[in-house]
Amino acid sequence: MSLALVLDLFGTFFFAVSGSLLAARRQFDIVGSLFLGSVAGLGGGVIRDLVLGQVPSAFDRPVYLIPPLAAALVVFFLLGSVERFRRLLLVFDAGGLALFCITGTVKALEAGMNPAASALLGVTTAVGGGLLRDVVANREPQLFNRRDLYAVPAMLGAGLVTVLWHAGMFGTAAALGVAAVVFGLRVLSLHYG
Amino acid sequence: MSLALVLDLFGTFFFAVSGSLLAARRQFDIVGSLFLGSVAGLGGGVIRDLVLGQVPSAFDRPVYLIPPLAAALVVFFLLGSVERFRRLLLVFDAGGLALFCITGTVKALEAGMNPAASALLGVTTAVGGGLLRDVVANREPQLFNRRDLYAVPAMLGAGLVTVLWHAGMFGTAAALGVAAVVFGLRVLSLHYG
Amino acid sequence: MSLALVLDLFGTFFFAVSGSLLAARRQFDIVGSLFLGSVAGLGGGVIRDLVLGQVPSAFDRPVYLIPPLAAALVVFFLLGSVERFRRLLLVFDAGGLALFCITGTVKALEAGMNPAASALLGVTTAVGGGLLRDVVANREPQLFNRRDLYAVPAMLGAGLVTVLWHAGMFGTAAALGVAAVVFGLRVLSLHYG
Repeated sequence: MSLALVLDLFGTFFFAVSGSLLAARRQFDIVGSLFLGSVAGLGGGVIRDLVLGQVPSAFDRPVYLIPPLAAALVVFFLLGSVERFRRLLLVFDAGGLALFCITGTVKALEAGMNPAASALLGVTTAVGGGLLRDVVANREPQLFNRRDLYAVPAMLGAGLVTVLWHAGMFGTAAALGVAAVVFGLRVLSLHYG
Repeated sequence: MSLALVLDLFGTFFFAVSGSLLAARRQFDIVGSLFLGSVAGLGGGVIRDLVLGQVPSAFDRPVYLIPPLAAALVVFFLLGSVERFRRLLLVFDAGGLALFCITGTVKALEAGMNPAASALLGVTTAVGGGLLRDVVANREPQLFNRRDLYAVPAMLGAGLVTVLWHAGMFGTAAALGVAAVVFGLRVLSLHYG
Repeated sequence: MSLALVLDLFGTFFFAVSGSLLAARRQFDIVGSLFLGSVAGLGGGVIRDLVLGQVPSAFDRPVYLIPPLAAALVVFFLLGSVERFRRLLLVFDAGGLALFCITGTVKALEAGMNPAASALLGVTTAVGGGLLRDVVANREPQLFNRRDLYAVPAMLGAGLVTVLWHAGMFGTAAALGVAAVVFGLRVLSLHYG
């Protein structure tokens, strides 16, 4: 498996967990949990691929169905205490954000998009799944919470990837570094927000 | 007209009625009714066709504009009592669900998608219109009501169609049988929910 | 720059201002303002281009990123009084509606769509951005306010453009005339609504 696929599957899993956790907080059943996890995990990538004029990965490669299923099962069977759900949701959401701003930008760059559009599509991919999750669950999107930073870390990550890619310096180490920066910035902003 | 087209137009009409009924309950005017009916009736198919990389039927074939128009007129002129709207909305919604999980799956199979993706797209088509209807009208989607089954009948129907199609046993009788099973299961779950 | 591009950029700016104004009313920060302005300004065009099977202009031409940036800055720095925001939001929204029902219809006609579909796509483009703005901000869409006309002016404009275009009479003067009619009708309906 390529690096991009691995990162994309982990990002899908992280966002799917955030969706299933929100479903648990809302007391949806397991099907609602699977559905909201799928929307959160696959939504950003579907928007990304439609903009690129490609068949969405979620429908093209059955392996993408595993993360939402795993997320729904993990949340259903392993998590007993609802108390910590809010914080856990935010941490998994941050993980998805960190990976998707990378995979979205890289896929756009590889498809030949200009730098500005590639970074924009990276940000769209990163915030898209969480936004759909919140809109479908009928609550105000996380993104608009003014007490912490949400889109800014994703913009920074997408910008960094665009620069590194054009400088020929983008590889596994760079990807993991950018992911760590985005994730760290997001979690720090939650902590001090 | 092909069987798929007939089923798709009836599914569009059923979902459009559900949208126009919701508009009536919310006291929207006739334009709001036409709009919410169009979103509910055409939304699932538009998502399906975009994923398949095709021009959405709603924009390709003017005949698709008739069901939402008919639905808005029927709801506006024929239905006097608002009392029964809630139950009627659910029954028409169930009719749309039963037909769209079939037409969505078949269109994906005919486009050469793998079985898992075809069933997934069938479910997405079936739940998509009702989901957009509820999101646009700013209420919690029907799908998340844990007291009855919504996605499960659609999953069952999409799965059955995929199996029957690959076994070479999918035809008019099979389609009507699957539709009856999905509709029956959904309505039974409403009754005992 | 072509007439269509100029109208589309101004429409994008008008809708982006409406989104940034809504963000200001909701006390979102500057990033939330930029994001909601982008959703409102670019959303209708992205839906239009996806339906047409084209790369969305927002991602294809970096110039489209200027209107949302300008809108967020204008709203952030120039507008002190929150009092008049509600009315201003409606006026800018009306400006976007008037221009997008034209550019959406023309782009569909130029892509070879049939007249009914072209007018429908024009209306979809015109109402799409404002609808996404309201859905994302978790409020009932403007469109459903029964005290004034929203979709009707857009329908009239899209219909007029379709007729004029097929009659070979569509040019700069016709476009500005239609825009004035749609804008005037919308603003009058707000005044007397």
